[in-house]
Amino acid sequence: MVILGAGPASLTAQIYALRYDLKVLSIGGVVGGLMTEPSKICNWPGEMAISGHELTEKMTDHVKAMNGEILVDQVEILKSSEGGWQLTTKQGKEFSARAVLLAMGTEHRKLGLESESRLAGRGVAYCATCDAMFFKGRNVAVVGGGNSAMTAALYLADLCPKVYLVHRSELKGEAVWRDEVLKHPNIIKVTDNQISDLLGENKLEKIILEKEFEGSKELLVDGLFVEIGTKPKSELFKALGGEVDDKDHVMVKKDQSTNLTGIWAAGDMTNGSNNLRQILTACAEGAIATESIYKFLRSNS
Amino acid sequence: MVILGAGPASLTAQIYALRYDLKVLSIGGVVGGLMTEPSKICNWPGEMAISGHELTEKMTDHVKAMNGEILVDQVEILKSSEGGWQLTTKQGKEFSARAVLLAMGTEHRKLGLESESRLAGRGVAYCATCDAMFFKGRNVAVVGGGNSAMTAALYLADLCPKVYLVHRSELKGEAVWRDEVLKHPNIIKVTDNQISDLLGENKLEKIILEKEFEGSKELLVDGLFVEIGTKPKSELFKALGGEVDDKDHVMVKKDQSTNLTGIWAAGDMTNGSNNLRQILTACAEGAIATESIYKFLRSNS
Repeated sequence: MVILGAGPASLTAQIYALRYDLKVLSIGGVVGGLMTEPSKICNWPGEMAISGHELTEKMTDHVKAMNGEILVDQVEILKSSEGGWQLTTKQGKEFSARAVLLAMGTEHRKLGLESESRLAGRGVAYCATCDAMFFKGRNVAVVGGGNSAMTAALYLADLCPKVYLVHRSELKGEAVWRDEVLKHPNIIKVTDNQISDLLGENKLEKIILEKEFEGSKELLVDGLFVEIGTKPKSELFKALGGEVDDKDHVMVKKDQSTNLTGIWAAGDMTNGSNNLRQILTACAEGAIATESIYKFLRSNS
Repeated sequence: MVILGAGPASLTAQIYALRYDLKVLSIGGVVGGLMTEPSKICNWPGEMAISGHELTEKMTDHVKAMNGEILVDQVEILKSSEGGWQLTTKQGKEFSARAVLLAMGTEHRKLGLESESRLAGRGVAYCATCDAMFFKGRNVAVVGGGNSAMTAALYLADLCPKVYLVHRSELKGEAVWRDEVLKHPNIIKVTDNQISDLLGENKLEKIILEKEFEGSKELLVDGLFVEIGTKPKSELFKALGGEVDDKDHVMVKKDQSTNLTGIWAAGDMTNGSNNLRQILTACAEGAIATESIYKFLRSNS
């Protein structure tokens, strides 16, 4: 059994697989995945406030204590072979597996501007919790209108004098956040507008808006937090003819299997758990997938 | 929102409900429910080995830190009322709720022997996945003839030199398991027999069979796994016309709702999570149910 990804779904699947005594390996670019980002997780049952790093460490320690293996690498080629699947990683390593569990999670959606990739890490950021501190005392912008954009803006507004919240239509997401955003004096809503370009030599200097805001198309900021949602990393799966929903989430059955024999999926990249994407539900999906894989391997051995 | 039960599904649902700022209360007979039983839980992600009591305490502390409320009592009467449900507890307390989450879990079916309760946790176990590792290299028995007994026997047979599978008539359940059980060299079938007593001072030492097996009525084992099924506590729900499966599990939809408006269910008592009943999946179901209840209450307020 090879698990693609190394976030909570993968780590839990590995814990379960080791308990079933399966030969298992996780391969992922970032141990912990997006779980590493939040500075404070308050809804993991039993932990009132734990950082993403700490929870990652706890789960990784668990896997290691069971002699599990996590390879920091990425699977680039996945193709069917006799009796299973053949995998090749970015670093050129090859593996074969009778069962593959996809648990690569999601990645932050990008604006898609050339200047955005050029200035990523130089003012353009995708995780307020991770990077807000670098912008303390400076003016920043957040783009997006959902929960993650609003919570990012609120977090930044406690550190920065001006936080422009650029959003296309009205603010979506939970009322509690909307109310807080509306009453925070440091948050300036730039409604019904979009970002058309980002300027700056070595670091972000200004945002160019599509329409004028307060007499200008420019916002002078040092930071831009792009909070326009996430994108499941399902390209590899789709290329094989795997079924996805309208937002590219892997379609899973009750046992986390997919339409491709020998391929299961778990975590944020699936349409499971009623689309509630939490560390907790990712872990549960990892466990369910592994039990299903265990039954499959036993009945086909 | 009132939650019936106080196990992991209930505690997690309460944590999520408090974060959604709902007015919520859990009512259950045993705080922690069946989670309190295992001496060692090794598959809760991030905890290599935690006792059921400790994990219960961690989750309960989490709920209490958020000012959540757990009432040690049991709901005995549940009836629909204008705009929701009316509840009466054993102790005569009355509550009304717009949303009810059933999370009462299951109870183990027991052999019903006096010695069984005395030796529970001292060789007598009810969950192979939880406790098999403690019996590595030792001889054990499993009682039961269904899928859970067979999978328990197979799981144990990879760890233990001898696994006696005691069952009354023929093996029921899936053919794949039956075939595997029949060909596994470590599994010894004790067919057409029953357990009449368990002996042992401080821990299980031998099983007394009703009929002779290979010239003796005794089986010398360190462990006995009672796998004669669990029983969901779904009587209250069934009495209201709630839909259950052939084993009395509450039938839930993807969002953990049931066929009764205003009633959701989560945890071991449901047919969710592909029938993998774990603390982890119970918690995930509790979270999913609460998000669904939150949306229901918002759109109906």
